Amino acid sequence: MSTDISIPQTGREVRRLIRAGLFRQPTSGVAPHHVQANVAILPKEMAFEFLLFCQRNPKPCPVIEVIESGEVEASLTATGSDITKDVPLYRVYKHGKMVDEPETLESYWRDDLVTFLLGCSFSFEHALMANGIDLPYYGTKRNVPMFITNIETEKSGPFAGPMVVSHRWIPQNKLVRAVQATSRFPETHGAPVHIGDPEKIGISDIRQPDFGEVWERKADDEVPVFWACGVTPQSIAMASKPELMITHSPGHMFVTDLKDEDLAVI
Amino acid sequence: MSTDISIPQTGREVRRLIRAGLFRQPTSGVAPHHVQANVAILPKEMAFEFLLFCQRNPKPCPVIEVIESGEVEASLTATGSDITKDVPLYRVYKHGKMVDEPETLESYWRDDLVTFLLGCSFSFEHALMANGIDLPYYGTKRNVPMFITNIETEKSGPFAGPMVVSHRWIPQNKLVRAVQATSRFPETHGAPVHIGDPEKIGISDIRQPDFGEVWERKADDEVPVFWACGVTPQSIAMASKPELMITHSPGHMFVTDLKDEDLAVI
Repeated sequence: MSTDISIPQTGREVRRLIRAGLFRQPTSGVAPHHVQANVAILPKEMAFEFLLFCQRNPKPCPVIEVIESGEVEASLTATGSDITKDVPLYRVYKHGKMVDEPETLESYWRDDLVTFLLGCSFSFEHALMANGIDLPYYGTKRNVPMFITNIETEKSGPFAGPMVVSHRWIPQNKLVRAVQATSRFPETHGAPVHIGDPEKIGISDIRQPDFGEVWERKADDEVPVFWACGVTPQSIAMASKPELMITHSPGHMFVTDLKDEDLAVI
Repeated sequence: MSTDISIPQTGREVRRLIRAGLFRQPTSGVAPHHVQANVAILPKEMAFEFLLFCQRNPKPCPVIEVIESGEVEASLTATGSDITKDVPLYRVYKHGKMVDEPETLESYWRDDLVTFLLGCSFSFEHALMANGIDLPYYGTKRNVPMFITNIETEKSGPFAGPMVVSHRWIPQNKLVRAVQATSRFPETHGAPVHIGDPEKIGISDIRQPDFGEVWERKADDEVPVFWACGVTPQSIAMASKPELMITHSPGHMFVTDLKDEDLAVI
C-alpha cells in the first residue's frame, strides 16, 4: 500500500481510502461534484430538539440525512458507508470541551448516538465558480471568512443563538447570478441572507472574521455578500454543552454518493 | 353576530372567525395567497420518528412548522394562534379509527401532543392558475383526484408505505411551465414526481382515483402529471395505528399568516 494516491473521484472511493487508513487530509477538491457533509453526532435524547432546530433554521442547518441510533450506515446518501470509520478526522467534545481528535470512533461509539449529516458550502461554491465568480481560498489551505451575526436563529429546546455566516466578495455585475446560482441549492445553504452592508447584520469589521481568514477586497465594484454557514449548528449545539457531541474535524468532511445536481431544486 | 360574512382576506381574520364559532366550512378560496397547512397531531413519543419521516420524504411531507408539546401557538407562522381552536373542523383517531369530528380540541388536548403543520397544494395551485393552467375542481366542492402509487416512501420507525399523489391534466404546451412554476415551492410539494405514464407509478386506471374525484381529460394534447400529496403523511401515520392522532377534517385547513411567495425558494 502507498499513500501516494491520485485524487479519488467518487464518494465511495474517498470513503474506501479513509477506511483503509490511506486518507487523513481535508476533503476539499476530492470527489469533484459529489456532495460533502458536515457531521454532528448527539445522544438520542437531544435528537428531536436538534432535528427541529434544523427544520426551523434550514438555511444554516440543511439536513442531508439522519442516521438513527443503532445504525452506522448513511443508507440513503452513501450506501455501504460507516459513519464511525469513513470521516478522515473526528472531534470528540464532552460538555462542550474538545477531549480528542481521533481517526475512528471505535472507542467512543454508543448505540444511542444519532448522526446528522448537514449540507456544506462546497456544492454552491462549485455553482459560483461555474458562473465565473472567483473564490481565492478555494482549493488552498485557506478558509472562507466567517462571522457571528446579530441574526438570531429560531430556538428549539436548548439550541439557540446567533447565525454564523460566510462572507464572499462578489463583483457587482455578478450579483444577480450569485443569487440565482445559489438559490438552486437550498440544501447547501441556498440564497444569501444579506447583500451589501455588513453592519446591518452585526459585523463591525469585515477584516476581522470570527472564524477562517480575512478575504481582502480586490476591486471597488466588489460587494460583500453573506450566506448562512454550517458552523452555526455545530457552534450552537456546542454552546448547550451536551454530555457527548462528536463532529468532523474542520475541513475533513463526510463525502456522500450524491452529486451536487441531485440537490438542486430547479 | 351573523354568519353572513364576506370572505376573510387574511389568515388572522380566518382564525378569528373560526375561534368565534362563525366559520365551520372548507378553507379553499379563503385568505387568498395565504399559506394553508395540513395538520397532524401526535404524542411526543412518536415526534422524532415522524419529523424524520418528513425530512426523508420532503415532497409529500413538507414541514411548515412544528408546535412543540406544551404549546398551542404556531408562533413562527401564525402569531396569536391556538391550534386547539383555530381549525374549522378536526378529526380524532384512536388506534387508527376515527372516533370524533369535533369543532375544538378542548376535550382531547394533552400536554404531550406535538403538532405538525405540513404544506398543502393550494400554494402551488395558485402558481399553476397564474400560468394559465385550468384546474376544474378549484373553488368548487369537488376535490383533486388522488392515487396510491407504487413509489415507496423512505421509512422512519413505524412510518412506512406508498406515496399518495395528486393528478392533474396539463396541456402539452404548458408542461414546462407547470414544472417551473411548482419547482419554486418545495414546501408545498414542489416539482411533479411523474409526467406522462400512470402505469409506471402503479396507477392502472386514471378514472378510478383512490381519493377525491375523477378529472375527465378534455383534449388529446393533455398529459397526466402527478405531484406528491399531503395525504401521504396522514395515511401513513394512521396505518401505524397510534394510540391518539388528531388531524384537520379534509379541506378544513389551518390558515397561516405566511403568503405563498414567502415559501418560494427562487
